[in-house]
Amino acid sequence: MKILSEHRSFNGTQRFLQHDSAEIGLPMRFALYLPPQPKALLVFLAGLTCTEETFTMKAGAQHLASELGLALLMPDTSPRGANAPGEADSWDFGVGAGFYLDATQQPWSKHWRMESYLLNELIPLVQRESGLTKTGLFGHSMGGHGALALALRHPGRFQSLSAFAPIAAPTQCPWGHKAFTGYLGEDRTTWAAHDASALMKQQVAAPYPQGILIDQGLADKFLPDQLHPEAFEAACAAVGQPLTLRRHEGYDHGYYFIASFVDDHLRHHAERLM
Amino acid sequence: MKILSEHRSFNGTQRFLQHDSAEIGLPMRFALYLPPQPKALLVFLAGLTCTEETFTMKAGAQHLASELGLALLMPDTSPRGANAPGEADSWDFGVGAGFYLDATQQPWSKHWRMESYLLNELIPLVQRESGLTKTGLFGHSMGGHGALALALRHPGRFQSLSAFAPIAAPTQCPWGHKAFTGYLGEDRTTWAAHDASALMKQQVAAPYPQGILIDQGLADKFLPDQLHPEAFEAACAAVGQPLTLRRHEGYDHGYYFIASFVDDHLRHHAERLM
Repeated sequence: MKILSEHRSFNGTQRFLQHDSAEIGLPMRFALYLPPQPKALLVFLAGLTCTEETFTMKAGAQHLASELGLALLMPDTSPRGANAPGEADSWDFGVGAGFYLDATQQPWSKHWRMESYLLNELIPLVQRESGLTKTGLFGHSMGGHGALALALRHPGRFQSLSAFAPIAAPTQCPWGHKAFTGYLGEDRTTWAAHDASALMKQQVAAPYPQGILIDQGLADKFLPDQLHPEAFEAACAAVGQPLTLRRHEGYDHGYYFIASFVDDHLRHHAERLM
Repeated sequence: MKILSEHRSFNGTQRFLQHDSAEIGLPMRFALYLPPQPKALLVFLAGLTCTEETFTMKAGAQHLASELGLALLMPDTSPRGANAPGEADSWDFGVGAGFYLDATQQPWSKHWRMESYLLNELIPLVQRESGLTKTGLFGHSMGGHGALALALRHPGRFQSLSAFAPIAAPTQCPWGHKAFTGYLGEDRTTWAAHDASALMKQQVAAPYPQGILIDQGLADKFLPDQLHPEAFEAACAAVGQPLTLRRHEGYDHGYYFIASFVDDHLRHHAERLM
Protein backbone atom coordinates (compact mmCIF):
# COMPACT_ATOMS: atom_id res chain seq x y z
CA MET A 1 0.00 0.00 0.00
CA LYS A 2 1.63 3.23 -1.17
CA ILE A 3 0.68 6.68 0.11
CA LEU A 4 0.41 8.95 -2.94
CA SER A 5 -0.37 12.07 -0.96
CA GLU A 6 -1.43 13.07 2.50
CA HIS A 7 -3.16 16.18 3.79
CA ARG A 8 -4.06 17.23 7.28
CA SER A 9 -7.81 17.87 7.37
CA PHE A 10 -9.95 18.81 10.37
CA ASN A 11 -7.36 17.44 12.79
CA GLY A 12 -7.38 14.15 10.91
CA THR A 13 -5.57 12.85 7.85
CA GLN A 14 -6.79 12.69 4.26
CA ARG A 15 -4.72 10.14 2.36
CA PHE A 16 -4.67 9.08 -1.28
CA LEU A 17 -3.34 5.54 -1.61
CA GLN A 18 -2.55 2.92 -4.21
CA HIS A 19 -2.26 -0.84 -3.91
CA ASP A 20 -1.90 -3.77 -6.28
CA SER A 21 -5.30 -5.41 -6.37
CA ALA A 22 -5.37 -9.18 -6.80
CA GLU A 23 -9.09 -9.16 -7.64
CA ILE A 24 -8.73 -6.47 -10.31
CA GLY A 25 -5.28 -7.53 -11.46
CA LEU A 26 -4.14 -3.92 -11.65
CA PRO A 27 -3.05 -1.15 -9.30
CA MET A 28 -6.07 0.56 -7.72
CA ARG A 29 -6.33 3.93 -6.04
CA PHE A 30 -8.48 4.91 -3.13
CA ALA A 31 -8.86 7.75 -0.66
CA LEU A 32 -9.10 7.33 3.09
CA TYR A 33 -9.98 9.97 5.66
CA LEU A 34 -8.95 9.13 9.20
CA PRO A 35 -10.50 11.34 11.88
CA PRO A 36 -8.54 11.99 15.09
CA GLN A 37 -10.53 9.27 16.92
CA PRO A 38 -11.89 6.75 14.41
CA LYS A 39 -14.79 4.67 15.75
CA ALA A 40 -16.38 3.22 12.60
CA LEU A 41 -15.83 3.00 8.86
CA LEU A 42 -18.09 4.54 6.22
CA VAL A 43 -17.57 3.59 2.56
CA PHE A 44 -18.69 5.97 -0.20
CA LEU A 45 -19.22 4.69 -3.76
CA ALA A 46 -19.05 7.43 -6.37
CA GLY A 47 -20.93 7.88 -9.63
CA LEU A 48 -20.15 7.68 -13.34
CA THR A 49 -16.91 9.41 -14.44
CA CYS A 50 -15.82 9.98 -10.82
CA THR A 51 -12.64 8.84 -9.12
CA GLU A 52 -11.57 8.38 -5.51
CA GLU A 53 -10.95 12.13 -5.46
CA THR A 54 -14.42 13.41 -6.34
CA PHE A 55 -16.35 12.96 -3.10
CA THR A 56 -13.15 13.48 -1.12
CA MET A 57 -12.70 16.93 -2.59
CA LYS A 58 -16.22 18.15 -3.25
CA ALA A 59 -18.57 16.80 -0.59
CA GLY A 60 -17.25 18.58 2.49
CA ALA A 61 -17.71 15.40 4.52
CA GLN A 62 -14.48 15.53 6.54
CA HIS A 63 -15.78 18.26 8.84
CA LEU A 64 -18.50 16.21 10.52
CA ALA A 65 -16.66 12.89 10.00
CA SER A 66 -13.89 14.33 12.18
CA GLU A 67 -16.38 15.26 14.89
CA LEU A 68 -18.28 11.96 14.78
CA GLY A 69 -15.24 9.71 14.49
CA LEU A 70 -16.13 8.26 11.10
CA ALA A 71 -13.29 7.04 8.89
CA LEU A 72 -14.25 7.58 5.23
CA LEU A 73 -13.19 5.20 2.47
CA MET A 74 -13.58 6.40 -1.12
CA PRO A 75 -12.75 3.70 -3.71
CA ASP A 76 -12.27 4.40 -7.41
CA THR A 77 -15.17 3.64 -9.78
CA SER A 78 -13.49 1.11 -12.10
CA PRO A 79 -10.19 -0.48 -13.07
CA ARG A 80 -7.74 1.91 -14.75
CA GLY A 81 -5.09 0.96 -17.26
CA ALA A 82 -6.62 -2.34 -18.38
CA ASN A 83 -6.54 -1.24 -22.02
CA ALA A 84 -9.62 -3.32 -22.76
CA PRO A 85 -10.89 -2.61 -26.28
CA GLY A 86 -13.47 0.20 -26.16
CA GLU A 87 -13.01 0.81 -22.44
CA ALA A 88 -12.96 4.59 -22.87
CA ASP A 89 -15.43 4.92 -25.76
CA SER A 90 -18.28 6.17 -23.58
CA TRP A 91 -18.59 7.93 -20.23
CA ASP A 92 -21.23 5.54 -18.90
CA PHE A 93 -19.48 2.22 -19.56
CA GLY A 94 -15.95 0.90 -19.04
CA VAL A 95 -13.46 3.25 -17.40
CA GLY A 96 -15.08 5.25 -14.59
CA ALA A 97 -18.21 3.10 -14.85
CA GLY A 98 -17.63 -0.23 -13.14
CA PHE A 99 -21.15 -0.41 -11.67
CA TYR A 100 -19.76 -2.24 -8.61
CA LEU A 101 -20.29 -5.74 -9.98
CA ASP A 102 -18.16 -8.60 -11.32
CA ALA A 103 -18.45 -8.70 -15.10
CA THR A 104 -19.12 -12.11 -16.61
CA GLN A 105 -18.63 -11.09 -20.26
CA GLN A 106 -15.43 -10.78 -22.28
CA PRO A 107 -13.35 -8.67 -22.32
CA TRP A 108 -14.63 -7.13 -19.07
CA SER A 109 -14.58 -10.23 -16.89
CA LYS A 110 -10.81 -10.15 -16.54
CA HIS A 111 -10.46 -6.83 -14.68
CA TRP A 112 -13.97 -5.44 -14.08
CA ARG A 113 -14.47 -7.21 -10.72
CA MET A 114 -15.47 -4.29 -8.54
CA GLU A 115 -17.79 -6.30 -6.28
CA SER A 116 -15.12 -8.88 -5.36
CA TYR A 117 -12.55 -6.10 -5.13
CA LEU A 118 -14.60 -4.14 -2.61
CA LEU A 119 -16.07 -6.99 -0.57
CA ASN A 120 -13.13 -9.42 -0.52
CA GLU A 121 -10.16 -7.13 -0.80
CA LEU A 122 -10.32 -3.36 -0.23
CA ILE A 123 -12.86 -3.11 2.59
CA PRO A 124 -11.33 -6.03 4.56
CA LEU A 125 -7.89 -4.50 4.03
CA VAL A 126 -8.97 -1.13 5.41
CA GLN A 127 -10.89 -2.74 8.27
CA ARG A 128 -7.80 -4.74 9.18
CA GLU A 129 -5.38 -1.83 8.92
CA SER A 130 -7.64 0.57 10.81
CA GLY A 131 -8.94 -1.90 13.36
CA LEU A 132 -12.47 -0.70 12.56
CA THR A 133 -15.14 -3.38 12.19
CA LYS A 134 -18.51 -1.59 12.14
CA THR A 135 -18.97 -0.44 8.55
CA GLY A 136 -21.59 1.62 6.76
CA LEU A 137 -22.11 1.99 3.01
CA PHE A 138 -23.42 4.86 0.93
CA GLY A 139 -23.03 6.22 -2.55
CA HIS A 140 -24.23 8.51 -5.31
CA SER A 141 -25.98 7.71 -8.60
CA MET A 142 -24.12 4.66 -9.99
CA GLY A 143 -22.56 4.47 -6.53
CA GLY A 144 -26.01 4.68 -4.98
CA HIS A 145 -26.92 1.62 -7.04
CA GLY A 146 -23.68 0.04 -5.82
CA ALA A 147 -24.42 0.81 -2.18
CA LEU A 148 -28.00 -0.49 -2.23
CA ALA A 149 -27.21 -3.56 -4.35
CA LEU A 150 -24.04 -4.62 -2.50
CA ALA A 151 -25.64 -4.12 0.91
CA LEU A 152 -28.56 -6.34 -0.11
CA ARG A 153 -26.35 -8.94 -1.82
CA HIS A 154 -24.10 -9.28 1.25
CA PRO A 155 -26.31 -9.46 4.36
CA GLY A 156 -24.52 -8.62 7.57
CA ARG A 157 -21.53 -7.01 5.92
CA PHE A 158 -22.78 -3.43 6.39
CA GLN A 159 -24.53 -2.12 9.47
CA SER A 160 -25.95 1.05 7.89
CA LEU A 161 -27.00 2.13 4.41
CA SER A 162 -27.92 5.33 2.56
CA ALA A 163 -27.74 6.84 -0.92
CA PHE A 164 -27.88 10.08 -2.89
CA ALA A 165 -29.91 9.94 -6.10
CA PRO A 166 -29.21 6.23 -6.65
CA ILE A 167 -29.85 4.34 -9.86
CA ALA A 168 -32.46 2.48 -7.85
CA ALA A 169 -33.76 0.10 -10.51
CA PRO A 170 -31.00 -0.42 -13.09
CA THR A 171 -32.92 -3.14 -14.95
CA GLN A 172 -35.46 -0.43 -15.84
CA CYS A 173 -33.24 2.40 -17.16
CA PRO A 174 -30.88 3.09 -20.08
CA TRP A 175 -27.72 3.32 -17.93
CA GLY A 176 -28.51 -0.04 -16.35
CA HIS A 177 -29.46 -1.69 -19.66
CA LYS A 178 -26.18 -0.62 -21.22
CA ALA A 179 -24.03 -1.63 -18.24
CA PHE A 180 -25.75 -4.95 -17.55
CA THR A 181 -25.80 -5.93 -21.24
CA GLY A 182 -22.09 -5.19 -21.50
CA TYR A 183 -20.95 -6.64 -18.20
CA LEU A 184 -23.52 -9.43 -17.59
CA GLY A 185 -24.72 -10.25 -21.10
CA GLU A 186 -28.01 -10.27 -22.98
CA ASP A 187 -29.69 -12.81 -20.68
CA ARG A 188 -31.82 -10.54 -18.50
CA THR A 189 -32.51 -13.26 -15.94
CA THR A 190 -29.01 -12.59 -14.59
CA TRP A 191 -29.71 -8.88 -14.12
CA ALA A 192 -32.18 -8.89 -11.24
CA ALA A 193 -29.52 -10.08 -8.79
CA HIS A 194 -27.85 -6.67 -9.27
CA ASP A 195 -30.96 -4.49 -9.16
CA ALA A 196 -31.61 -2.90 -5.74
CA SER A 197 -35.38 -2.76 -6.23
CA ALA A 198 -35.59 -6.37 -7.40
CA LEU A 199 -33.30 -7.46 -4.56
CA MET A 200 -35.41 -5.64 -2.00
CA LYS A 201 -38.62 -7.22 -3.33
CA GLN A 202 -37.17 -10.68 -2.64
CA GLN A 203 -36.44 -10.03 1.05
CA VAL A 204 -38.49 -11.99 3.58
CA ALA A 205 -37.79 -9.49 6.36
CA ALA A 206 -36.51 -5.91 6.46
CA PRO A 207 -32.72 -6.21 6.02
CA TYR A 208 -32.13 -2.79 7.58
CA PRO A 209 -34.72 -2.58 10.36
CA GLN A 210 -33.12 0.66 11.60
CA GLY A 211 -33.96 2.28 8.28
CA ILE A 212 -32.37 3.33 4.99
CA LEU A 213 -31.93 7.00 4.02
CA ILE A 214 -32.18 8.22 0.41
CA ASP A 215 -31.99 11.85 -0.74
CA GLN A 216 -33.20 12.79 -4.20
CA GLY A 217 -33.19 16.22 -5.85
CA LEU A 218 -36.30 17.09 -7.81
CA ALA A 219 -34.38 19.23 -10.32
CA ASP A 220 -32.14 16.23 -11.08
CA LYS A 221 -32.15 15.89 -14.87
CA PHE A 222 -31.60 12.14 -14.58
CA LEU A 223 -34.58 11.58 -12.30
CA PRO A 224 -37.26 10.98 -14.96
CA ASP A 225 -35.42 8.33 -16.97
CA GLN A 226 -32.54 6.85 -15.02
CA LEU A 227 -33.10 6.77 -11.27
CA HIS A 228 -36.58 5.39 -10.37
CA PRO A 229 -36.47 5.87 -6.60
CA GLU A 230 -40.21 5.09 -6.60
CA ALA A 231 -39.42 1.48 -7.59
CA PHE A 232 -37.15 1.06 -4.59
CA GLU A 233 -39.69 2.84 -2.39
CA ALA A 234 -42.42 0.41 -3.48
CA ALA A 235 -40.15 -2.59 -2.89
CA CYS A 236 -39.30 -1.34 0.62
CA ALA A 237 -42.99 -0.82 1.38
CA ALA A 238 -43.80 -4.33 0.17
CA VAL A 239 -41.33 -6.00 2.55
CA GLY A 240 -41.72 -3.60 5.48
CA GLN A 241 -38.26 -2.06 5.10
CA PRO A 242 -38.24 1.38 6.78
CA LEU A 243 -37.10 3.95 4.21
CA THR A 244 -36.69 7.69 4.52
CA LEU A 245 -36.83 8.94 0.94
CA ARG A 246 -36.52 12.71 0.93
CA ARG A 247 -37.39 14.58 -2.24
CA HIS A 248 -35.75 18.01 -2.34
CA GLU A 249 -37.23 20.81 -4.42
CA GLY A 250 -34.69 22.55 -6.66
CA TYR A 251 -31.67 20.32 -6.05
CA ASP A 252 -29.85 18.73 -9.01
CA HIS A 253 -27.70 15.61 -9.45
CA GLY A 254 -24.33 17.12 -8.56
CA TYR A 255 -22.05 17.65 -5.61
CA TYR A 256 -23.69 20.91 -4.49
CA PHE A 257 -26.70 18.68 -3.76
CA ILE A 258 -24.58 16.04 -2.03
CA ALA A 259 -22.73 18.61 0.08
CA SER A 260 -26.04 20.10 1.20
CA PHE A 261 -27.20 16.85 2.77
CA VAL A 262 -24.01 14.91 3.48
CA ASP A 263 -24.10 15.76 7.19
CA ASP A 264 -27.49 14.08 7.52
CA HIS A 265 -26.04 10.93 5.97
CA LEU A 266 -23.01 10.94 8.26
CA ARG A 267 -25.34 11.28 11.27
CA HIS A 268 -27.59 8.50 9.91
CA HIS A 269 -24.60 6.16 9.76
CA ALA A 270 -22.98 7.26 13.04
CA GLU A 271 -26.24 6.61 14.92
CA ARG A 272 -26.38 3.06 13.56
CA LEU A 273 -22.66 2.22 13.73
CA MET A 274 -21.83 3.41 17.24
CA MET B 1 -24.65 39.14 -17.05
CA LYS B 2 -25.22 35.61 -18.21
CA ILE B 3 -25.92 32.68 -15.88
CA LEU B 4 -23.73 29.78 -17.05
CA SER B 5 -25.02 27.34 -14.47
CA GLU B 6 -26.99 27.33 -11.28
CA HIS B 7 -27.15 24.82 -8.42
CA ARG B 8 -29.25 24.75 -5.30
CA SER B 9 -26.89 24.58 -2.32
CA PHE B 10 -27.80 24.63 1.37
CA ASN B 11 -31.16 26.25 0.63
CA GLY B 12 -29.42 28.98 -1.32
CA THR B 13 -28.18 29.28 -4.89
CA GLN B 14 -24.70 28.70 -6.27
CA ARG B 15 -24.38 30.48 -9.61
CA PHE B 16 -21.60 30.61 -12.18
CA LEU B 17 -21.85 33.79 -14.24
CA GLN B 18 -20.17 35.61 -17.09
CA HIS B 19 -20.17 39.27 -18.03
CA ASP B 20 -18.33 41.50 -20.49
CA SER B 21 -15.83 43.42 -18.42
CA ALA B 22 -15.06 46.98 -19.54
CA GLU B 23 -11.96 47.15 -17.32
CA ILE B 24 -10.52 43.88 -18.61
CA GLY B 25 -11.84 44.23 -22.15
CA LEU B 26 -12.85 40.57 -22.23
CA PRO B 27 -15.61 38.36 -20.89
CA MET B 28 -14.98 37.43 -17.27
CA ARG B 29 -16.43 34.61 -15.21
CA PHE B 30 -17.26 34.61 -11.54
CA ALA B 31 -19.14 32.51 -9.03
CA LEU B 32 -21.72 33.83 -6.59
CA TYR B 33 -23.32 32.01 -3.69
CA LEU B 34 -26.53 33.56 -2.45
CA PRO B 35 -27.75 32.25 0.91
CA PRO B 36 -31.48 32.18 1.64
CA GLN B 37 -31.25 35.47 3.59
CA PRO B 38 -28.20 37.44 2.43
CA LYS B 39 -27.04 40.08 4.89
CA ALA B 40 -23.49 40.90 3.76
CA LEU B 41 -21.05 40.15 0.95
CA LEU B 42 -17.77 38.28 1.34
CA VAL B 43 -15.29 38.25 -1.56
CA PHE B 44 -12.77 35.41 -1.89
CA LEU B 45 -9.64 35.86 -4.04
CA ALA B 46 -8.12 32.56 -5.15
CA GLY B 47 -4.51 31.55 -5.69
CA LEU B 48 -2.26 30.74 -8.64
CA THR B 49 -3.78 28.45 -11.31
CA CYS B 50 -7.24 28.66 -9.72
CA THR B 51 -10.49 29.83 -11.26
CA GLU B 52 -13.84 31.03 -9.90
CA GLU B 53 -14.68 27.35 -9.42
CA THR B 54 -11.87 26.28 -7.09
CA PHE B 55 -12.94 27.73 -3.75
CA THR B 56 -16.58 27.35 -4.75
CA MET B 57 -16.19 23.60 -5.18
CA LYS B 58 -13.49 22.67 -2.68
CA ALA B 59 -13.76 24.87 0.40
CA GLY B 60 -17.11 23.74 1.78
CA ALA B 61 -17.96 27.35 2.62
CA GLN B 62 -21.60 27.35 1.53
CA HIS B 63 -22.75 25.44 4.60
CA LEU B 64 -21.97 28.12 7.17
CA ALA B 65 -22.45 30.97 4.67
CA SER B 66 -26.03 29.81 4.33
CA GLU B 67 -26.53 29.86 8.10
CA LEU B 68 -24.81 33.20 8.65
CA GLY B 69 -26.36 34.97 5.66
CA LEU B 70 -23.09 35.65 3.85
CA ALA B 71 -23.19 35.97 0.08
CA LEU B 72 -19.90 34.68 -1.37
CA LEU B 73 -18.30 36.20 -4.47
CA MET B 74 -15.52 34.21 -6.14
CA PRO B 75 -13.86 36.11 -9.04
CA ASP B 76 -11.52 34.48 -11.54
CA THR B 77 -7.77 34.95 -11.06
CA SER B 78 -6.86 36.64 -14.38
CA PRO B 79 -8.17 37.58 -17.82
CA ARG B 80 -8.81 34.60 -20.10
CA GLY B 81 -8.59 34.62 -23.87
CA ALA B 82 -6.39 37.71 -24.22
CA ASN B 83 -3.88 35.77 -26.30
CA ALA B 84 -1.05 37.93 -25.01
CA PRO B 85 2.32 36.53 -26.09
CA GLY B 86 3.63 34.12 -23.45
CA GLU B 87 0.49 34.38 -21.28
CA ALA B 88 0.37 30.61 -20.69
CA ASP B 89 4.11 29.87 -20.59
CA SER B 90 4.24 29.52 -16.81
CA TRP B 91 1.79 28.67 -14.06
CA ASP B 92 2.81 31.59 -11.85
CA PHE B 93 2.51 34.44 -14.35
CA GLY B 94 -0.07 35.45 -16.97
CA VAL B 95 -3.20 33.30 -17.21
CA GLY B 96 -4.41 32.23 -13.76
CA ALA B 97 -1.91 34.57 -12.13
CA GLY B 98 -3.22 38.14 -12.28
CA PHE B 99 -1.94 39.06 -8.80
CA TYR B 100 -4.94 41.40 -8.34
CA LEU B 101 -3.18 44.51 -9.65
CA ASP B 102 -3.28 46.71 -12.76
CA ALA B 103 -0.28 45.92 -14.93
CA THR B 104 1.66 48.93 -16.23
CA GLN B 105 3.92 47.01 -18.64
CA GLN B 106 3.27 45.89 -22.20
CA PRO B 107 1.67 43.59 -23.26
CA TRP B 108 -0.05 43.02 -19.89
CA SER B 109 -1.35 46.53 -19.31
CA LYS B 110 -4.12 46.13 -21.87
CA HIS B 111 -6.09 43.34 -20.16
CA TRP B 112 -4.36 42.53 -16.83
CA ARG B 113 -6.32 45.10 -14.82
CA MET B 114 -7.61 42.92 -12.00
CA GLU B 115 -7.51 45.67 -9.35
CA SER B 116 -9.67 48.06 -11.35
CA TYR B 117 -11.86 45.18 -12.45
CA LEU B 118 -12.60 44.11 -8.88
CA LEU B 119 -12.83 47.52 -7.21
CA ASN B 120 -14.53 49.54 -9.93
CA GLU B 121 -16.55 46.94 -11.75
CA LEU B 122 -17.27 43.48 -10.36
CA ILE B 123 -17.70 44.18 -6.66
CA PRO B 124 -19.85 47.31 -7.25
CA LEU B 125 -21.91 45.32 -9.77
CA VAL B 126 -22.59 42.53 -7.28
CA GLN B 127 -23.25 44.99 -4.47
CA ARG B 128 -25.77 46.82 -6.67
CA GLU B 129 -27.49 43.67 -7.93
CA SER B 130 -27.67 42.05 -4.48
CA GLY B 131 -28.43 45.19 -2.51
CA LEU B 132 -25.62 44.25 -0.10
CA THR B 133 -23.27 47.02 0.98
CA LYS B 134 -21.21 45.67 3.88
CA THR B 135 -18.37 43.74 2.26
CA GLY B 136 -15.52 41.61 3.57
CA LEU B 137 -12.44 40.41 1.70
CA PHE B 138 -10.36 37.28 2.06
CA GLY B 139 -8.18 35.07 -0.09
CA HIS B 140 -5.59 32.34 -0.37
CA SER B 141 -1.91 32.50 -1.34
CA MET B 142 -1.78 34.91 -4.33
CA GLY B 143 -5.35 35.76 -3.36
CA GLY B 144 -4.25 36.31 0.23
CA HIS B 145 -1.78 38.85 -1.12
CA GLY B 146 -4.65 40.30 -3.14
CA ALA B 147 -6.95 40.53 -0.14
CA LEU B 148 -4.39 42.17 2.16
CA ALA B 149 -3.02 44.53 -0.49
CA LEU B 150 -6.36 45.64 -1.94
CA ALA B 151 -7.88 46.16 1.52
CA LEU B 152 -4.93 48.39 2.50
CA ARG B 153 -4.86 50.22 -0.84
CA HIS B 154 -8.57 51.06 -0.65
CA PRO B 155 -9.40 52.23 2.86
CA GLY B 156 -13.06 52.01 3.74
CA ARG B 157 -14.01 49.71 0.90
CA PHE B 158 -13.92 46.50 2.99
CA GLN B 159 -15.17 46.18 6.53
CA SER B 160 -13.42 42.91 7.36
CA LEU B 161 -10.26 41.14 6.24
CA SER B 162 -8.64 37.73 6.51
CA ALA B 163 -6.34 35.40 4.58
CA PHE B 164 -5.15 31.82 4.23
CA ALA B 165 -1.41 31.38 3.69
CA PRO B 166 -1.05 34.75 1.94
CA ILE B 167 1.96 35.87 -0.06
CA ALA B 168 2.41 38.44 2.67
CA ALA B 169 5.51 40.23 1.40
CA PRO B 170 5.64 39.80 -2.39
CA THR B 171 8.60 42.18 -2.80
CA GLN B 172 10.63 39.63 -0.82
CA CYS B 173 9.84 36.35 -2.61
CA PRO B 174 10.36 34.70 -6.03
CA TRP B 175 6.64 34.67 -6.97
CA GLY B 176 6.36 38.37 -6.20
CA HIS B 177 9.61 39.28 -7.96
CA LYS B 178 8.50 37.50 -11.12
CA ALA B 179 4.98 38.97 -11.08
CA PHE B 180 5.96 42.51 -10.18
CA THR B 181 8.83 42.57 -12.69
CA GLY B 182 6.48 41.40 -15.43
CA TYR B 183 3.43 43.47 -14.55
CA LEU B 184 4.99 46.58 -12.94
CA GLY B 185 8.49 46.65 -14.47
CA GLU B 186 12.06 46.61 -13.20
CA ASP B 187 11.75 49.79 -11.14
CA ARG B 188 11.29 48.36 -7.65
CA THR B 189 10.15 51.67 -6.18
CA THR B 190 6.75 50.94 -7.75
CA TRP B 191 6.46 47.56 -6.05
CA ALA B 192 5.99 48.55 -2.40
CA ALA B 193 2.54 49.99 -3.13
CA HIS B 194 1.40 46.41 -3.85
CA ASP B 195 3.15 44.67 -0.95
CA ALA B 196 0.89 44.04 2.06
CA SER B 197 3.71 44.20 4.59
CA ALA B 198 5.12 47.41 3.13
CA LEU B 199 1.62 48.91 2.96
CA MET B 200 0.92 48.00 6.58
CA LYS B 201 4.18 49.55 7.72
CA GLN B 202 3.11 52.90 6.26
CA GLN B 203 -0.17 53.07 8.20
CA VAL B 204 -0.48 55.80 10.81
CA ALA B 205 -3.27 53.97 12.65
CA ALA B 206 -4.60 50.42 12.61
CA PRO B 207 -6.74 50.19 9.45
CA TYR B 208 -8.68 47.21 10.84
CA PRO B 209 -9.03 47.96 14.55
CA GLN B 210 -11.35 44.95 14.93
CA GLY B 211 -8.51 42.70 13.83
CA ILE B 212 -7.26 40.71 10.85
CA LEU B 213 -7.24 36.89 10.81
CA ILE B 214 -4.54 34.87 9.03
CA ASP B 215 -4.22 31.08 9.05
CA GLN B 216 -0.96 29.46 8.00
CA GLY B 217 -0.11 25.76 7.78
CA LEU B 218 3.31 24.78 9.09
CA ALA B 219 3.66 21.89 6.60
CA ASP B 220 3.07 24.36 3.74
CA LYS B 221 5.93 23.78 1.29
CA PHE B 222 5.75 27.40 0.15
CA LEU B 223 6.11 28.81 3.66
CA PRO B 224 9.91 29.03 3.83
CA ASP B 225 10.47 30.91 0.57
CA GLN B 226 7.28 32.48 -0.70
CA LEU B 227 4.88 33.54 2.04
CA HIS B 228 6.65 35.47 4.84
CA PRO B 229 3.76 35.90 7.26
CA GLU B 230 6.31 37.06 9.83
CA ALA B 231 6.93 40.20 7.75
CA PHE B 232 3.24 41.09 7.86
CA GLU B 233 3.12 40.20 11.54
CA ALA B 234 6.00 42.57 12.29
CA ALA B 235 4.38 45.35 10.26
CA CYS B 236 1.09 44.91 12.14
CA ALA B 237 2.91 44.99 15.47
CA ALA B 238 4.73 48.16 14.46
CA VAL B 239 1.53 50.08 13.72
CA GLY B 240 -0.66 48.52 16.41
CA GLN B 241 -2.84 46.57 13.98
CA PRO B 242 -4.48 43.66 15.86
CA LEU B 243 -3.62 40.45 14.03
CA THR B 244 -4.53 36.87 14.83
CA LEU B 245 -1.92 34.82 12.97
CA ARG B 246 -2.54 31.14 13.65
CA ARG B 247 0.20 28.67 12.76
CA HIS B 248 -1.20 25.17 12.32
CA GLU B 249 1.01 22.12 12.79
CA GLY B 250 0.80 19.62 9.92
CA TYR B 251 -1.42 21.59 7.53
CA ASP B 252 -0.26 22.20 3.97
CA HIS B 253 -1.01 24.86 1.33
CA GLY B 254 -4.08 23.26 -0.25
CA TYR B 255 -7.83 23.21 0.06
CA TYR B 256 -7.94 20.53 2.76
CA PHE B 257 -6.22 23.16 4.89
CA ILE B 258 -8.63 25.90 3.77
CA ALA B 259 -11.70 23.73 4.35
CA SER B 260 -10.49 22.92 7.87
CA PHE B 261 -10.54 26.57 8.90
CA VAL B 262 -12.96 28.29 6.52
CA ASP B 263 -15.74 28.36 9.12
CA ASP B 264 -13.55 30.42 11.44
CA HIS B 265 -13.02 32.92 8.61
CA LEU B 266 -16.73 33.14 7.82
CA ARG B 267 -17.45 33.81 11.49
CA HIS B 268 -14.65 36.40 11.65
CA HIS B 269 -16.27 38.27 8.77
CA ALA B 270 -19.87 37.83 9.89
CA GLU B 271 -19.05 39.26 13.33
CA ARG B 272 -17.57 42.38 11.72
CA LEU B 273 -20.06 42.82 8.88
CA MET B 274 -23.35 42.42 10.74
